[in-house]
Amino acid sequence: MATLCRPSVSVPEYVITMEETLELARSRHEDHPQLPLALRLIENTGVQTRHIVQPIAETLKHPGFEERNKVYESEAKARVPAVIQRALDDAELLTTDIDMIIYVSCTGFMMPSLTAWLINTMDFSSDTRQIPIAQLGCAAGGAAINRAHDFTTAYPDANALIVACEFCSLCYQPTDLSVGSLLCNGLFGDGIAAAVVRGNGGTGVHLERNGSYLVPKTEDWIMYDVRATGFHFLLDKRVPGTMEPLAPALHALARQHDWDASDLDFYIIHAGGPRILDDLSKFLEVPPEAFRFSRATLTEYGNIASAVVLDALRRLFDEGGAEHAARGLLAGFGPGITAEMALGRWRDGSNETV
Amino acid sequence: MATLCRPSVSVPEYVITMEETLELARSRHEDHPQLPLALRLIENTGVQTRHIVQPIAETLKHPGFEERNKVYESEAKARVPAVIQRALDDAELLTTDIDMIIYVSCTGFMMPSLTAWLINTMDFSSDTRQIPIAQLGCAAGGAAINRAHDFTTAYPDANALIVACEFCSLCYQPTDLSVGSLLCNGLFGDGIAAAVVRGNGGTGVHLERNGSYLVPKTEDWIMYDVRATGFHFLLDKRVPGTMEPLAPALHALARQHDWDASDLDFYIIHAGGPRILDDLSKFLEVPPEAFRFSRATLTEYGNIASAVVLDALRRLFDEGGAEHAARGLLAGFGPGITAEMALGRWRDGSNETV
Repeated sequence: MATLCRPSVSVPEYVITMEETLELARSRHEDHPQLPLALRLIENTGVQTRHIVQPIAETLKHPGFEERNKVYESEAKARVPAVIQRALDDAELLTTDIDMIIYVSCTGFMMPSLTAWLINTMDFSSDTRQIPIAQLGCAAGGAAINRAHDFTTAYPDANALIVACEFCSLCYQPTDLSVGSLLCNGLFGDGIAAAVVRGNGGTGVHLERNGSYLVPKTEDWIMYDVRATGFHFLLDKRVPGTMEPLAPALHALARQHDWDASDLDFYIIHAGGPRILDDLSKFLEVPPEAFRFSRATLTEYGNIASAVVLDALRRLFDEGGAEHAARGLLAGFGPGITAEMALGRWRDGSNETV
Repeated sequence: MATLCRPSVSVPEYVITMEETLELARSRHEDHPQLPLALRLIENTGVQTRHIVQPIAETLKHPGFEERNKVYESEAKARVPAVIQRALDDAELLTTDIDMIIYVSCTGFMMPSLTAWLINTMDFSSDTRQIPIAQLGCAAGGAAINRAHDFTTAYPDANALIVACEFCSLCYQPTDLSVGSLLCNGLFGDGIAAAVVRGNGGTGVHLERNGSYLVPKTEDWIMYDVRATGFHFLLDKRVPGTMEPLAPALHALARQHDWDASDLDFYIIHAGGPRILDDLSKFLEVPPEAFRFSRATLTEYGNIASAVVLDALRRLFDEGGAEHAARGLLAGFGPGITAEMALGRWRDGSNETV
C-alpha cells in the first residue's frame, strides 16, 4: 500500500520575469529573422516568472561544460539536502527509514550520481538502494513515482525517497538559435523537489496502478545533442501536438483500473507547455480548471522538467488535499516520447486506523 | 519467482593483446617517470586480450566528445539488437513478452537512452517500462539484475530485459597521464550483454534476495570528471583494497538469508581487477577457483564494466550450469563505492512442473 506523501519543493532565489525574458530575446537576437515568432511563442507559454541558480548575467555566459557541471554539483549539494529533509519530515520518517533513493536529473551529469554523496552526508543507511536516472528528461518525475511504487509493491514495508533536481538554466546554449531553442530559453526553469513513497501509512496519493507509454517513432522529437559544450536540447515542433496520440494511453490505463480518465477527481500533469495542458484538457474532456496545479507551476516556475509533477502535487496538498478516496491521475511526459502514468486515490492517513 | 536466464554476450571484432598494450604504453609514454610501475600494473591485471569497437589506430585518436558519442550511438544501434534477440531466444520469450527494459551503460550518453530506439526498432510493446542507468558504472550490471528482481517480485507474471552496453574504449583519454589512467588504458574492454529475468519459468538463477551496500565516504574513489573532452575516469589507488570493507556486507546479506557467504556453490563477481578477485577470495574464505568465471572474463575481455557479471554468468551456463538448487552469490561493484549483491539458487526449468 504505497502512499506518495507531500512533496517538498524549492526554487532558487534568482528570478527572471517574462518581460525580462522578452527583452533579452529582443536585445540578443534583434537580427534573427524569426524573432517575432519566437517572442510570440514565449508570450504564449504563460510563464510569468522563473527561478534560476545564478544571476541572469552569469546564466547567459557559457563557461564550458566542465565549469557548468561543477556549478551543477555545488548547487545541488548546497540545495538538495534541505529539500529532502523537509520531504522526510512531512512523511514523518527519518533518513534511516528510507530503503531506496531514486534521484532523477537531466541537467547535470555526475558519476557517481548525487545519491552516494547524499547517503554519506545525510546519514542514510549504507544499504539504501540507488536508482539514478539522467536520461528520461521531464518524464523522470513520473518514472520516479512509478518505480518507487513498484519497489514498495515488491517490499510492502519499504519506503522510497524520490529526488528531482533540475537546473535547466545550466543547459542554456547561447549558440543555439533555432526558434525552438529561443522558445526553450523562455520556457524552462530551475527547481528541486523531493517526496517520499511510504509503504505503510502516510497522507497523500495511495498509488494503485502505473504504466508507461512510448509514442511510436518519436524518439528523436525530444533529445539531447551531446557536444563538447554540453547538452543541447532539441525540441521538434511536433512535440506540442503529442497529447492526441497520448490521451488514448491515459484512457487505456484508467480503463484497466475500471476508471474513466475523463471523470477523475484530480489531475497532476507534467506542464511541458501550455499547448500540452490545453490539448489534454480537450482530449481527456476535462475542464481546464482540472489542471490548475500544473498551470500554476508553469506560470510561476516555468517547465522545471522532472520536478513539475511533484510541484503540481505539492499545490494540491497546499489546497488542502482532496476528499478521502478521491481518484486521481498523475502523468509525466518526456523524451522517447515517453509518458509515465499513475492512478491513485487520495488517502488521509489520519482518517485510517491501519 | 524471478529467474535470471542465460545471458547473451558479444564482444567487438577488433582485438588488442596485452603485448600490444604494453608496447603502446612503452612507445607513447617513454618519458613517463612512472612507466615501469604502469607496465607492471598492466601486466598484473592478467588481461590477455580485449575487444574494441574500432581499430586501435582509431581508438587512440580523440575526435572530440561529440564525435565519440556519435560512434557510441551508431555502434550500439548496430550491435545491441542481435545480443538482445539471442537473450530473448535463450529465455524462450518474444519482445512482446517483455514488460521492462533496464539499459545500463556509462560509456556514452544519449537522451533518450537507447531504450526508445530499441522499443521502436525491435517491436517491443509501447507500454514497456524503461529504466536507463548511466551513473552506476560497473555496479550497474548488478543493479540491473536487482531492479529486475524487484520488478518481477512486484509483478510476478512480468518479465524484465537487462542490457549492458559498454564501449570503454570510447572513454580513452590520451591526455590523462596518471599511473591510474595508464593502468585503466590496459584494463578496460568493450562488450555488450543482455539477459532476461523471467517472472515465471526459465532456467538459470532463481533470484531470492538482493541488497546494496555503499562503502562509507568513498564517493570520490571511482568517478568521472566530466569535461568538454568527455568522461575522464578517475580511479583512486585505494580502490583495489575495498574488498576488505565490502566482504562483511556480502556476509551480512547471506546471513539474512540463513546462508554462509563462504560456503556457496557458485560465485558470479564483478572482475574489476585481479586484486578484487584475490582479496574477495581471501576475505570470503573461498578458493580462487570459485571465481573462475570472473577470472576468465577479465583475462579474455578485460573489465567490460557493467557487462562483467553477465559475462561471468554466461560462462557458468557454458560450463553446463550448476546442480539444481545450488546456491550462489552475484555481486557487482562500482562507483559510490557501491556493491549490488544478489543471492539465488540454480533452477533447471526443465526439471520443474510449474
